Amino acid sequence: MSARIAVCLDLSEDQWVRLQDGVGNYTLEADGELEGCEIAFGNPEADRLEAVETLRWVQLESVGFGEYMGLDWSRLENRLSLTNLAGFFSDPVAETALAGILGLTRGIDRVVQLKSAKSWMGDTLRTCLRSIRNARVVMVGFGAINRRLAQILLPFDCEVMAIHSTTPVQELDDALTGADIVVCTAPDTVATRGLFGRERLALIPAHAIFANLGRGSIVDEDALAEMLNTGRIGGAVLDVTVDEPLPPDHPFWTCPNTILTQHSGGGTTDELDRKIDVFLENLARYRTGQPLQGIVKMTRGY
Amino acid sequence: MSARIAVCLDLSEDQWVRLQDGVGNYTLEADGELEGCEIAFGNPEADRLEAVETLRWVQLESVGFGEYMGLDWSRLENRLSLTNLAGFFSDPVAETALAGILGLTRGIDRVVQLKSAKSWMGDTLRTCLRSIRNARVVMVGFGAINRRLAQILLPFDCEVMAIHSTTPVQELDDALTGADIVVCTAPDTVATRGLFGRERLALIPAHAIFANLGRGSIVDEDALAEMLNTGRIGGAVLDVTVDEPLPPDHPFWTCPNTILTQHSGGGTTDELDRKIDVFLENLARYRTGQPLQGIVKMTRGY
Repeated sequence: MSARIAVCLDLSEDQWVRLQDGVGNYTLEADGELEGCEIAFGNPEADRLEAVETLRWVQLESVGFGEYMGLDWSRLENRLSLTNLAGFFSDPVAETALAGILGLTRGIDRVVQLKSAKSWMGDTLRTCLRSIRNARVVMVGFGAINRRLAQILLPFDCEVMAIHSTTPVQELDDALTGADIVVCTAPDTVATRGLFGRERLALIPAHAIFANLGRGSIVDEDALAEMLNTGRIGGAVLDVTVDEPLPPDHPFWTCPNTILTQHSGGGTTDELDRKIDVFLENLARYRTGQPLQGIVKMTRGY
Repeated sequence: MSARIAVCLDLSEDQWVRLQDGVGNYTLEADGELEGCEIAFGNPEADRLEAVETLRWVQLESVGFGEYMGLDWSRLENRLSLTNLAGFFSDPVAETALAGILGLTRGIDRVVQLKSAKSWMGDTLRTCLRSIRNARVVMVGFGAINRRLAQILLPFDCEVMAIHSTTPVQELDDALTGADIVVCTAPDTVATRGLFGRERLALIPAHAIFANLGRGSIVDEDALAEMLNTGRIGGAVLDVTVDEPLPPDHPFWTCPNTILTQHSGGGTTDELDRKIDVFLENLARYRTGQPLQGIVKMTRGY
């Protein structure tokens, strides 16, 4: 009897055929049922991983894995490998970051609203716009996304300051006071949770843009909303929020100079096809006993 | 008696003081009155240039000079130099071009509208998004703006095809059929007027983005609006239109996937200060008999 793979994501018929061809003599379980499976592709229900003892490898379709952090990994890790898509979304997320930042500096958010109102603002608009050339950019977290963003900012001659998990917090604070743009892509860890509280946010200059494409938990959302509403900060690009979907009464909905990209930053039309590519590449490694790509180290938290 | 400079733009008090300091023993005429002036800074009324025989040099505050093309330059050029701000706006306009293009590919126009409606779209949005990495970009006109845009696209590994005024039209047409993005920055000349008529627009693939930051006259606006409304083209970023302000009944106001930047592309908060810098630099050349920067060659048309 061939080993079974639980498929825990929705595929088109074409994608299913391609996956089926790619896995060879493995059997696919379409409904995401884990029972008796050796492998899972997608994000299965966390509380089943311990019970299904046949599982040896779960290939997540995300970078985040917060829902699996509560499991007893000191026991689980002996039989089960968890791999994520670290780096997979860096190109699109970095492009969304730049799209949002330029959206604010070049007034794209304004002109979209003006178009809805069929309203011509013209020359008055020009004096509100900025160039990002020579901007001072503080990058909080310097993994795949911010490294890619630093690359695409090269022609703008920005002064990029990378804040790593090992950077002393005083260096972060000093950098923030001179920032034109702050871009957070750090994961949710004990160290990043609440890092941008009210006092630290207040260090950011009033003209600066705060972008968050990591996890919502890094920022005090009420404090940020207040600063946006009072013009104490230039604008915000938020791909992530503490609660998603954003609750209907959340203050961010009505904050000015705020672009909410609704956790779409990693999206592309060919996203699922590329996920299948990654899974099949990793499956080839799995079958030949090579180390898997993207193994999650639970103790580190990312 | 010192020579006089007619100031034909609105300056703040600080800017006025700085200009006054910079011009030394020249006298400034605040109200844009040309009579008796040797120099004009700004865009004076075209039909006065021939009558005011004391004028020797006009420093425009624009790149465009269409309003002066009807004058008798075969006579005027003997006594009067006209300089424009060629290249002055290339950084901000190229940034607006990228902001608009990324705005469409990363769904910024969508999320701005969703925010107005307090509506969460989430995952469905992801599948509509694209990366511009490796995109094929046809640049129609390859002056300062598109050259700057080509520079800032370098990290995206785009395949840039530059169409010059000397490029055979067949090469343009061949390039268009394979384009992901078309960016026009060509000036208004006999050769560019109506260049993108209905038939040529139809060569552009249905997923592609058409951006125009040169002059509105290059494109058949009715044809483009139809293609946008029927999904025959992926989207448009339009900084320029034939009529500005855009008339209230113009079809562009309601076209989907269309970002109208209202001729703000060249704008920055420090725009006027930078214009004063350029004028004072050119004035130093004028006083010492050096060649002026940005001399307009009327016969060439740009």
